[in-house]
Amino acid sequence: MSAHTPDIKLLFEPRTIAVIGASHDPNKIGYKIVQNIVSNGYGGRVFPVNPKGGEIVGLRAYASVRDIPDEIDVALIVVPAKAVFQTVQECAAHGVKFVPIISSGFSEVGNLEEERKIVAYARAHGMRVLGPNIFGLYSVTPSLNASFGPREIPKGNVAIVTQSGALGVAMIGKAAAEKMGLSAIISVGNKADIDEADLLEYLVPHAETRVILMYIEGVKNGERLVTSLKRASKQKPIIVIKAGRSRRGAIAAASHTGSLAGATEVFDAIMKQCGVLRAESIREAFHWCKFLATSVLPRGAETVIITNGGGVGVLATDACETYSVELYDDLQVLEKIFSPVTPEFGSTKNPIDLTGQATAADYDQALAAAQRSDAIHAVIALYCETALFDIASFEPMIERNFRAFQAQGKPVVFSALGGEKVERLTETLRHRGVPIFADVTEAVSCLGALYEHHRYVTQPEEPVESFELDTSALEKILEAARRERRGFLLAHEAQQLLRIARIPVPRSAIARTLEEAVRYAEEIGYPVVLKVVSRDILHKSDVGGVALDLDNAHEVADAYGAILHNCRTYKPGAVIDGIEVSRQVPPGTQIIIGARRDPSFGPIVMVGLGGIYVEVMKDVSFRALPIGRQDALNMLKELKSYPLLLGVRGEERRDVDAVIEVLLRVGALLLASEGISDIEINPLIVYEHGRGGIAVDARVLLAEGGYL
Amino acid sequence: MSAHTPDIKLLFEPRTIAVIGASHDPNKIGYKIVQNIVSNGYGGRVFPVNPKGGEIVGLRAYASVRDIPDEIDVALIVVPAKAVFQTVQECAAHGVKFVPIISSGFSEVGNLEEERKIVAYARAHGMRVLGPNIFGLYSVTPSLNASFGPREIPKGNVAIVTQSGALGVAMIGKAAAEKMGLSAIISVGNKADIDEADLLEYLVPHAETRVILMYIEGVKNGERLVTSLKRASKQKPIIVIKAGRSRRGAIAAASHTGSLAGATEVFDAIMKQCGVLRAESIREAFHWCKFLATSVLPRGAETVIITNGGGVGVLATDACETYSVELYDDLQVLEKIFSPVTPEFGSTKNPIDLTGQATAADYDQALAAAQRSDAIHAVIALYCETALFDIASFEPMIERNFRAFQAQGKPVVFSALGGEKVERLTETLRHRGVPIFADVTEAVSCLGALYEHHRYVTQPEEPVESFELDTSALEKILEAARRERRGFLLAHEAQQLLRIARIPVPRSAIARTLEEAVRYAEEIGYPVVLKVVSRDILHKSDVGGVALDLDNAHEVADAYGAILHNCRTYKPGAVIDGIEVSRQVPPGTQIIIGARRDPSFGPIVMVGLGGIYVEVMKDVSFRALPIGRQDALNMLKELKSYPLLLGVRGEERRDVDAVIEVLLRVGALLLASEGISDIEINPLIVYEHGRGGIAVDARVLLAEGGYL
Repeated sequence: MSAHTPDIKLLFEPRTIAVIGASHDPNKIGYKIVQNIVSNGYGGRVFPVNPKGGEIVGLRAYASVRDIPDEIDVALIVVPAKAVFQTVQECAAHGVKFVPIISSGFSEVGNLEEERKIVAYARAHGMRVLGPNIFGLYSVTPSLNASFGPREIPKGNVAIVTQSGALGVAMIGKAAAEKMGLSAIISVGNKADIDEADLLEYLVPHAETRVILMYIEGVKNGERLVTSLKRASKQKPIIVIKAGRSRRGAIAAASHTGSLAGATEVFDAIMKQCGVLRAESIREAFHWCKFLATSVLPRGAETVIITNGGGVGVLATDACETYSVELYDDLQVLEKIFSPVTPEFGSTKNPIDLTGQATAADYDQALAAAQRSDAIHAVIALYCETALFDIASFEPMIERNFRAFQAQGKPVVFSALGGEKVERLTETLRHRGVPIFADVTEAVSCLGALYEHHRYVTQPEEPVESFELDTSALEKILEAARRERRGFLLAHEAQQLLRIARIPVPRSAIARTLEEAVRYAEEIGYPVVLKVVSRDILHKSDVGGVALDLDNAHEVADAYGAILHNCRTYKPGAVIDGIEVSRQVPPGTQIIIGARRDPSFGPIVMVGLGGIYVEVMKDVSFRALPIGRQDALNMLKELKSYPLLLGVRGEERRDVDAVIEVLLRVGALLLASEGISDIEINPLIVYEHGRGGIAVDARVLLAEGGYL
Repeated sequence: MSAHTPDIKLLFEPRTIAVIGASHDPNKIGYKIVQNIVSNGYGGRVFPVNPKGGEIVGLRAYASVRDIPDEIDVALIVVPAKAVFQTVQECAAHGVKFVPIISSGFSEVGNLEEERKIVAYARAHGMRVLGPNIFGLYSVTPSLNASFGPREIPKGNVAIVTQSGALGVAMIGKAAAEKMGLSAIISVGNKADIDEADLLEYLVPHAETRVILMYIEGVKNGERLVTSLKRASKQKPIIVIKAGRSRRGAIAAASHTGSLAGATEVFDAIMKQCGVLRAESIREAFHWCKFLATSVLPRGAETVIITNGGGVGVLATDACETYSVELYDDLQVLEKIFSPVTPEFGSTKNPIDLTGQATAADYDQALAAAQRSDAIHAVIALYCETALFDIASFEPMIERNFRAFQAQGKPVVFSALGGEKVERLTETLRHRGVPIFADVTEAVSCLGALYEHHRYVTQPEEPVESFELDTSALEKILEAARRERRGFLLAHEAQQLLRIARIPVPRSAIARTLEEAVRYAEEIGYPVVLKVVSRDILHKSDVGGVALDLDNAHEVADAYGAILHNCRTYKPGAVIDGIEVSRQVPPGTQIIIGARRDPSFGPIVMVGLGGIYVEVMKDVSFRALPIGRQDALNMLKELKSYPLLLGVRGEERRDVDAVIEVLLRVGALLLASEGISDIEINPLIVYEHGRGGIAVDARVLLAEGGYL
């Protein structure tokens, strides 16, 4: 960022605001925005700009931004696309800090060039661009509704960042209907300049914002987003709805193309790594937002289900597994807590089943018992409509208990299933902020989101180790390839790269003569492998350029001759740099480790078990770089084939630490030079615990050759 | 079933009904049931039974069922558990046909014996038992509400069968609140006698029932349920909520223990095979019920999304993939249909994006265009609240279009996201039967359920082939094992069993002398394998009881001696039946095929790729028997490792037909004799296409030894 870059806070809390393209026609967007700003009680100064001058919503309209007798922090631009660039120039001349461009007609319809030109100009003149193609923004602190969405926006603690304008406007309405107050809503549109990471800089420290919801279709500058999300999720729950997950959805969202396991898998893995909560639908996202904006954080994981119906208790138990909510299971303690309040045929096992015989008083007492016990950290309270239960007393009883749980620092969710009376009181309670749902699964899903956030927040921060790499040696290797206009490294160069990162590779040397080959083989120790080194021969095995299992000098000599003969027969003009002699490594478990620059997320690593497991079973895991040792272990644990590393059928445990070490070092290599776009070790052969692993083959692509 | 078994229709449409345990106390269940029956306008005769006599809800109460001067079709029993058996005896004496036992205190609290005694007595006397531990039943045809649930039950076309009483009562209330009419609701409780399969006999042909919803915790007599569901799903959508899916949920539901891949996987696979729609929550199930009870069936799979907001269009596209809804993609046809009604910046690709600029009239025209086109079979219509859209005209326009789509035989779902006005009109429309949702995902999920049902209904019925098996030879093998009180077959017996089913096994013979061993080896052809045959030695390889790769008579002779020596050293008293000499089969792809009697579903088959794929990756698929050839192929296609059979990395395709053949024949074997509980072929070695496969090893357990 240049020194001129304005503080993002001014976008949310401007002292002055101009609306360029303000209209006299109440049906126009350019009128509606001014009207929304004025009627929402924004405290700063507002300057409509319209060439005709006059008055708009009671404010004097200026013919041009140049005529405004004040500094402008934010200038909303509502003029037609082709007039935007000139307007931006005028704004720059006037010292405007932020230009949210409402107008559409840019990259979303293929007009990428104009968009780039505008942003480049703005940035060069110390301005930031929001949009284009947006509905504006709302910000609670200055009570600013600079949007053409609904006039009334309920104030509250949820901030929304949306890539879709139409959806954003509809979400404002939905939030009002659901009594979910907003602290901000910002439309980012084409994200030509300002993106989610910029906005988080304001929203994360923003006191009124307790939860941040993002609707994302595509990610730009993912590396920065990852860094930003990782930090943000430690402070506040970040909920993401990702659209364009399916193949067709991605086409509909005009997103980038997929990679090895499809971009969705990478997105999901990285969001999880960042502590982001991924909602499956708008409904789920809204439920989570409302709950997380109000609930206390738990002190521990022990959750208890209290129910007056066995069936819903079982459904809630299933949902706890789905949403990773841990159920307390010290049966003795549970019996002690709940047996005084549980009827004869009930159960004090978790779920605590008070049975259909339970009265409102029984239910109340069971909740009180859960409040008192230090062993219980969260409660899922379920109610099925019965004849015995006095529904009239239900509403105040639930609200009272909700407040009591909150005061105790214990999260609680409620579910009530029944007829119209139950529906009505549920709605009343919900509008008073009580987290109560008709469906048990939805109730448990909210608690699950809270626990996922809680686990991320409480998980110890892992140091990222630094590995000392000889970067000048590294760059020298890359430079050599670049000089030859190669987009990839030759096998022995790739091996040198791995050696720089101290990743074990088989002992090897390149022989230029038969004598050298035999000498190297003797030094390295039998058995050895011979392999031709030539940029002109890609599929070395297929043309007879490789010889395995060579046990003595005689066999080496024969193989040397045969390889040269085969290669010259295959391609008479091929440049042969030599014959690589390397130690033949004993068999072991094959692992694939990769690191690359993902077009949306930047540097990522992946790991999977060799061959079939990755290619056919798609059993891989991903993380954004950098990662720590625990991250690396978790990547392995996520693999379905992980038990193979622990040893199955009486086999010994493999050297998991060695795999982790290589994963970390491959990541460090990629980060050490912008010149590398892609590293793939396939296979890394791993042996029994303590015996390490060896990278037998590696493929390295260069950034220029790889992507450009 | 005995000849005396009454027609299940009488349970739903009794001419006369008795309530034994009817109470004078309006707070008692025994009063409430009589009251519900009377107030719902049941047309038949009602007889309260109470030892004190008198009048209950204006009806004469009889001291005993014996005193009732009429035949009784249904006698509800509401007396304490310990008095139930005597009451059942009295009912039998009076010729009662059905006894729904409301009372609890039976197998659900461990009192299985009393429950069994009651059912045995009832069945022996031509009576059927519903329950015990139920809330009763409701049946629309005679307007019978024989339950202690809510008095008012909305009439309609959804039948509910529930294993949980409390949940059932609450669902009645919820159905009323959601304006979802019911044609029947039956509480099956402990399912001591009558189960889902019995009830389907009435509900499937029942004209008023269009959709059947079942809440299931555990399955009894699954084999019959499978047969029944397969047939029922061809007639009407069957929606199932399965509780107790998680490990803890299963404990909470006191369900049976898991097997190889966990009972949930088996349940899911079999429900899918039966065409059943599995709902994840009560909310989802209710949405599906309402939609499927009213929607027309589609004529084809081509679905179009029409939206005025890009974001919701993308979310709906993603949901279509999740719920297997196919999107029409002939871009030329789409352009022809929709370009006249799509604004300049909109899209006629699917989703059809009318953009936020669309007016109500544009939207209406786009829907009309979709109605007219024969190329379009179903529509997902999405609306985001915008400033431009005249919300007042929305409600009648949507309802009119819904009726028009229905008249055209085209399913349609709507979604509308926005503020309170949108919420209110959505609710109004929903109560008028229009399938409209705030959340796009929920809308698409309904259409997905309809299509899943549609695919099952239209999928051609597959003939189940019969395999001629020499059952007397088969029984002889089993008999031999039983005589020796063995629960399993010896290896060569298992091989004989496979031969009976014409499943290829390696050529082999059992040698009792060294000379025989050598002779057999010469006949079979080298290389051969020698293996000890002894019921006393289980892990043959571990004790040196197996020798591989024997290439000539000399090696056979050496191995023969060594095996005998090893076995006698290991267990001096072991009975050795001989040494099996068999052809050593060449290596190929390993497959595991199993067939067993599942404790809940009866005979099932499973298949997976050998070793690691099944054991570590849990990559298996299941079906209930019998299956057809297409089923068997689908089982293979469901495997993640299926590409390995098709050939990866330049390998040839494996003999898939041979795998299917063995799958079918293993199934046929299990069905051929009740004496077999478990067959597992591990491995079946499969070769290139056309070269078949060989079952190298098989394990067979007998029914008595296996489970009893």
